Amino acid sequence: MDAAVRQALFDAAALDRLTRVADTDPSLVVGDFADPAAAGALAEAEVLFTGWGCPPLTAQALDGMPRLRTVVHAAGSVKHHITDACWARGLTVASAADANAVPVAEFTVAAILFSGKRVLHAARVYRERRSWVSPIEVIGAGGNYRRTVGVVGASRIGRRVLELLRPYDLRVLLYDPYVDAEEAARLGARAVPLDTLALSSDIVTIHAPQLPETRHLFDRARLALLPDGATLINTARGSLVDTAALTDELVSGRIDAVLDVTDPEVLPPGSPLYDLPNVLLTPHIAGSLGNELYRMTQAALDELERYARGLPYVSGVRAEELVRSA
Amino acid sequence: MDAAVRQALFDAAALDRLTRVADTDPSLVVGDFADPAAAGALAEAEVLFTGWGCPPLTAQALDGMPRLRTVVHAAGSVKHHITDACWARGLTVASAADANAVPVAEFTVAAILFSGKRVLHAARVYRERRSWVSPIEVIGAGGNYRRTVGVVGASRIGRRVLELLRPYDLRVLLYDPYVDAEEAARLGARAVPLDTLALSSDIVTIHAPQLPETRHLFDRARLALLPDGATLINTARGSLVDTAALTDELVSGRIDAVLDVTDPEVLPPGSPLYDLPNVLLTPHIAGSLGNELYRMTQAALDELERYARGLPYVSGVRAEELVRSA
Repeated sequence: MDAAVRQALFDAAALDRLTRVADTDPSLVVGDFADPAAAGALAEAEVLFTGWGCPPLTAQALDGMPRLRTVVHAAGSVKHHITDACWARGLTVASAADANAVPVAEFTVAAILFSGKRVLHAARVYRERRSWVSPIEVIGAGGNYRRTVGVVGASRIGRRVLELLRPYDLRVLLYDPYVDAEEAARLGARAVPLDTLALSSDIVTIHAPQLPETRHLFDRARLALLPDGATLINTARGSLVDTAALTDELVSGRIDAVLDVTDPEVLPPGSPLYDLPNVLLTPHIAGSLGNELYRMTQAALDELERYARGLPYVSGVRAEELVRSA
Repeated sequence: MDAAVRQALFDAAALDRLTRVADTDPSLVVGDFADPAAAGALAEAEVLFTGWGCPPLTAQALDGMPRLRTVVHAAGSVKHHITDACWARGLTVASAADANAVPVAEFTVAAILFSGKRVLHAARVYRERRSWVSPIEVIGAGGNYRRTVGVVGASRIGRRVLELLRPYDLRVLLYDPYVDAEEAARLGARAVPLDTLALSSDIVTIHAPQLPETRHLFDRARLALLPDGATLINTARGSLVDTAALTDELVSGRIDAVLDVTDPEVLPPGSPLYDLPNVLLTPHIAGSLGNELYRMTQAALDELERYARGLPYVSGVRAEELVRSA
């Protein structure tokens, strides 16, 4: 992992836990598998504890790690460093993807509650008017009682959102091509086709993976299905939405949006999305950051302890999962 | 209640429910107990179904309602219309205060999650910079993992906040002079003195009643105890905080705030709180508004149905409670 990531992931307590479970040199941080200074440690290593910035574990890199049996990743996706060569070698892999899902789901729940209640709209009106604002008028038909929320994708994050939404008086719809009506009901939602979800939801939140077939899942036609005044929340990947079509809808004021990701990921300086009052635009922050990195470290250390005790991983990654996950 | 309130509280389904449980004329809305047009209905009434704008039920007003036995209030506090004369007459009283607590608690949870993650800060920086913002730098030490939240007041709203915070990885402190360590633990919090709470909390949220002894509960000295970078959330009443002292702290940028109430309630146009980037200022909207009014109506209709079936109220109001509640 990057040296900076190592600093951010490990506080003193986590380092202590690492050195108790593993025979390790906590001062050694490998950012390049070809680094001669790391060759000795890699030749001996049974476990790689990886994080953001881990280079791909190519067949060549693996040649330098003859004793390697498993990779424990203190972050979400392992797509960038776990290669086919890892599976061919029979390595097992664990990730902190469940822990990494938590902050995105928390961001989403807060965004749903604030959007449903029109909180940022009310704040803006009060700030502009600098005098009494009628609460009844400024909230209008807002509020979070029996509002319909459409969740797109029962991914790790989508499932965590569904779980966190349970204490609220919301009607929850779910679209996921791999989830049937029964499973959706167990998750607290009603399974519907995507167009039905778009037509019926006051708030739509996207938690689908970025795949060739999900590119522009929300294209111009599907965005047009959203009811007037609906809010689209995207914390997944920008390419899931047609940015030009979304921009048109937002400039017209017909719908609102909470966008933590965009396509392109940093918007051009001339994009109207920076200025629109009906858009909350954030710079890809919903995932683990700040103290939330410690949650991933603790989850990865949990897995490492299981490995050391000969137990199976709780968040093991299988080769076939990577195809349809983010 | 006000005629406008009647419109906002009752959709067709609620009206239908009302007329099924009660012998009533749904077109009659009484806003003044001295109104001669209402005298006949009031003389017959066994139940008053009240809402915002209900005038005080004085002894004189009650003289016109010899058959009155109970008052069901489709809103939170009954302080403005339930008088000592009501208790002297032996009336029973139910309110929708539990239902009214829900949206305030929901607003608070969303405010806690967004404050902890520094979401609005990140949005502002991105908007100003209109180019790449480092997520790691902009969030800094933010994040919602093991952050400490101090809840001031185990009121209905405070308890609902505590309940809604359970699924999150937060350390929760509680100050309430009427709640001991055991009860606090049952509520998912650690009971601490108020100064300890102020000193130890990353986020403080106020849910105490407005009483003579809670005026300026957060005075200059107590505000000074809050850690640098802490967030104060006030959805209760403005007078619980010394506005001048709070303004100084916020202008200096030492702390952040989410303020749905202020003292005075509409701030003077020159107040810096309107413009500060570290303040989310909303115009008293956290309570029931929009579709959230229907939740209060349904709760009041639940009580009315209990009354009709001879069952005790779930949210009955007792005279002695009014003294220490909002």
